[in-house]
Amino acid sequence: MGDMSRPDISDGERLRVRLDLAYDGTSFAGWASQPGLRTVQATVESALETILRGSVGSCRLTVAGRTDAGVHARGQVCHADLTMAADDVDRLAGRLNRLLPDDVVVHRAVVAPSGFDARFSATWRRYAFRICDRTEAVDPLRRHEVLAWPRPLDLAAMNAAAEGLLGEHDFAAFCKRREGASTMRDLRELVWSRAAGVLECRVVANAFCHHMVRSLVGCLVVVGEHRQPVPWPREVLAAAERSSRVPVLAARGLTLEEVGYPPIDQLAARAARVRGGA
Amino acid sequence: MGDMSRPDISDGERLRVRLDLAYDGTSFAGWASQPGLRTVQATVESALETILRGSVGSCRLTVAGRTDAGVHARGQVCHADLTMAADDVDRLAGRLNRLLPDDVVVHRAVVAPSGFDARFSATWRRYAFRICDRTEAVDPLRRHEVLAWPRPLDLAAMNAAAEGLLGEHDFAAFCKRREGASTMRDLRELVWSRAAGVLECRVVANAFCHHMVRSLVGCLVVVGEHRQPVPWPREVLAAAERSSRVPVLAARGLTLEEVGYPPIDQLAARAARVRGGA
Repeated sequence: MGDMSRPDISDGERLRVRLDLAYDGTSFAGWASQPGLRTVQATVESALETILRGSVGSCRLTVAGRTDAGVHARGQVCHADLTMAADDVDRLAGRLNRLLPDDVVVHRAVVAPSGFDARFSATWRRYAFRICDRTEAVDPLRRHEVLAWPRPLDLAAMNAAAEGLLGEHDFAAFCKRREGASTMRDLRELVWSRAAGVLECRVVANAFCHHMVRSLVGCLVVVGEHRQPVPWPREVLAAAERSSRVPVLAARGLTLEEVGYPPIDQLAARAARVRGGA
Repeated sequence: MGDMSRPDISDGERLRVRLDLAYDGTSFAGWASQPGLRTVQATVESALETILRGSVGSCRLTVAGRTDAGVHARGQVCHADLTMAADDVDRLAGRLNRLLPDDVVVHRAVVAPSGFDARFSATWRRYAFRICDRTEAVDPLRRHEVLAWPRPLDLAAMNAAAEGLLGEHDFAAFCKRREGASTMRDLRELVWSRAAGVLECRVVANAFCHHMVRSLVGCLVVVGEHRQPVPWPREVLAAAERSSRVPVLAARGLTLEEVGYPPIDQLAARAARVRGGA
């Protein structure tokens, strides 16, 4: 939130600004700021601070989906509480893009509607995991976002297995454990398709715990290689504890594609409910 | 062609092998070998020489479309005359891909049909030039192959102007001059479309001279910005000499997508005709 008591060195009022952005995660140590590492958060915050001439830390971003090192985003959403004139928000995306490196692009900057919180108002996140399962068919121009897989994968088997994972469950088997954090999630879509030589898994849930998409996809790939039968992922889920037989696939294949929010009049209620743990 | 008199150090006969390949041109100084520079030709020839344990220069590649520094390819075709068993050609693509860097992929290696010449048998080449004309809409994951353009482009005006360039003409106005080389070309398609925020120009001709696609596209972009009227590119063409008002667009937006060949029984006749300058 920054220090509300500092003098306003930019003209204007304190506004909540929503940023929609995309990045190539290849050269980032993930979203979240970490000392000494190149992260998306620190890169964008630094550009905001340059534009607003703010002191370090006054442009803190809150993000919808914290992505790990190497994970990409096309539809990431974040917000910041900034001291600036509302009229200047229209030009903020352009000014940010002139300062930002090539691998981050701000698609849009707008004054957020009342009650909006990029993280807590979000009702769903959609990820895509992309694999090319014939090494010779790899498109070198997409190698940063499509994982090359050395063996052919059975699309129908993976889709049959995916169905057993849909719905609200404890996804502890697919999550890196965090002390005190719930691993209950509502998995709404998990479906593979194949187009132009690329297998794409579309994954939608209310939210994801750490490593969840890469573990879900890894589990299905084991079925796709016929190393486990179609019912196996459902059994892994039911066991509700991590198994070393579920691989966490490489980050490069994963992209956060879209974040969903409720209608404007439900934003604040949604945020309050999620913060309260409902 | 290499030295036919050298002893056969690999088992097998002298075969003409066709390679279909793709590359991200970003880190290459183009296709053609140049001393001290990283080129696609030298990279692939070196991998072939490693596999065939041939002496340097015995795996010389002949290519359908010599691409400039920074230009990409998805459907490049080349051939080499190699001393190897026909049965081993089936495994050649896989072996090459294990040796090649990430930015080059061999999609296919086959024994070429009789009379095949990657360069002289080709009847057409298809390129795509991709532009994103809203800086804020740039997809950072495609930034290596889609040129960001700072001003909006008028698709309809560019397509109207493109029509005036179709057909067989002297394209000297759009070609970097080479002593004694003809600049007569048959331009068969030149059409813009817009999909998912990206403008794509599809360009098909029997062949292209140096800088031709990037100049054609550059000329149309001037019209797309309304800095010249729709008939202007046709006037530039008619003048038949290079104009400083025609920009050569950046290489990064250009990709060789496909090369066309006639039916097998016409390959040799086609090659003889093109070599003869017909």
